[in-house]
Amino acid sequence: MNTVVLLSGGLDSSVLAAYLKKKGPVQALFINYGQRHSVKEGQAAYRMANLLGLQSRFLQLRGIFGDNNALTGSLSVPLGEYAKETMATTVVPNRNSVLLNVAAAYAEGIGYDQVAYAAHGGDHELYPDCTPRWVEAFNNLLKAGDLRVRLIAPFVKLTKAEIVDLGYILEVPLQHTWSCYQGGEKHCGVCSTCLERKWAFVTAGVKDHTEYGR
Amino acid sequence: MNTVVLLSGGLDSSVLAAYLKKKGPVQALFINYGQRHSVKEGQAAYRMANLLGLQSRFLQLRGIFGDNNALTGSLSVPLGEYAKETMATTVVPNRNSVLLNVAAAYAEGIGYDQVAYAAHGGDHELYPDCTPRWVEAFNNLLKAGDLRVRLIAPFVKLTKAEIVDLGYILEVPLQHTWSCYQGGEKHCGVCSTCLERKWAFVTAGVKDHTEYGR
Repeated sequence: MNTVVLLSGGLDSSVLAAYLKKKGPVQALFINYGQRHSVKEGQAAYRMANLLGLQSRFLQLRGIFGDNNALTGSLSVPLGEYAKETMATTVVPNRNSVLLNVAAAYAEGIGYDQVAYAAHGGDHELYPDCTPRWVEAFNNLLKAGDLRVRLIAPFVKLTKAEIVDLGYILEVPLQHTWSCYQGGEKHCGVCSTCLERKWAFVTAGVKDHTEYGR
Repeated sequence: MNTVVLLSGGLDSSVLAAYLKKKGPVQALFINYGQRHSVKEGQAAYRMANLLGLQSRFLQLRGIFGDNNALTGSLSVPLGEYAKETMATTVVPNRNSVLLNVAAAYAEGIGYDQVAYAAHGGDHELYPDCTPRWVEAFNNLLKAGDLRVRLIAPFVKLTKAEIVDLGYILEVPLQHTWSCYQGGEKHCGVCSTCLERKWAFVTAGVKDHTEYGR
C-alpha cells in the first residue's frame, strides 16, 4: 500500500506519516489554504517531511475559504481550554472535504492506493468531518465516482496522548512539529491547541521538548 | 432558494444559471483548475455572467490535477465523435468532486442554500460523477459533515438537445457560450464537443448562431 498523507506539520499528521512509512511508500502533501499560520505550518511540514525522509508536495489553494472563522479569517484565535463556543470559530466550512478531495485527485493521478489524514478521537464533537461516519461517506463518494483511491484515518479512535505515545515509540522528533494557532517564533503555550498539546505529553508520560513562550 | 452555480461558460452551465435565476438569487462561480482552454472558458464564463446579470466569482486552483489527461495535461484533445477510449483521456480524476466541494465551501461561507452543476443525461458512462447516484453520495457527505448546503443537478436527466431547447425558451444567448476543447479564435467545429454541440442544435431544431472554423 502506498499512501498520500495530508501533512500539516502538526503533531498528529507527523506521527501518522511516520507510522504509515513503516508500511509502505508515503508521499506527504501540504496544502496552503490561506490559513493564518500557513508559514509556520508550511515550515514545520517541510522540516518534518525531510526529517522523516518523505517525498513531499506543496500546493496552494488561496481565496476559497471565507473570512468568518479564526483560521483563515479575521476572528481572533481562541485562548484557554477548548470549549464549544470558542472552538466553533475554528471551523472552516467543508475544509477537510476540499483538502482530502484534492489529495484524492493527486493520489489517483500518481497511481497511489490511499489517502490518509490524522483525524483522531480527541477531535471534538465540533468536527463532524473527523468521524468514522464521515470517512465512510467520503469513501462512498469516491466509489460512486469510480476512483481507485480510498481514504483512511488510522488514528480516528486514538486520543492525542496515545498519538504522542506512538510518536515517541516511532522516534518522531515531536518537538519539531507545530501546533500553535498563533504563529509566533515559539509555541505560545496558552492557546487552545498549545494547552491540548502540553496535556497530551503529560498524559502520555512523554517528556515534552517543545519550546513554549509560557 | 439561493444558489451558487458552477459556471464553465459552456452551453449546459449557462442555461442552468439562467434557469435557476428564474427561481432565486444566483451566484456564478468559475474555477480555473489549469484546464487547457481556461482562458477561453474564463472569458465565456465572464461574458455569460454579465449577459445573464449574475454576480460572479473567479477562483484559481492550479497544480492540482495531473498531466495524464487531455484537459489539464499533455495528451491531445480527441477529435471526431465521442467514443469510449478517446473520451477516457478527458477524465480528470476527481475533478467534479474537488470543484463542487470548493463550491460547497464557498456557498456555505456566504450562507447560500445550494450548489448546482450542469451534469446532464448525455454525460456518457465515462463520467460517473455526473449521475444521480453520485449526487446522492455527495449530499450524504455534506450531511455527514453537518453542512447546510446541498448539491443539485437539475439537468441530470436531460439530453443536450433538451438543454439547447430550454436555453432557447429562456432566451439565453447560446452563441456566446464556449464548448470547444481546442481553444482557438472560434469553435473548431470538428472536436468531439463541437460535434456534440452542433448535433444538439440540430436535434432541438434551434438555429445555431455559433461561429465554427469548419
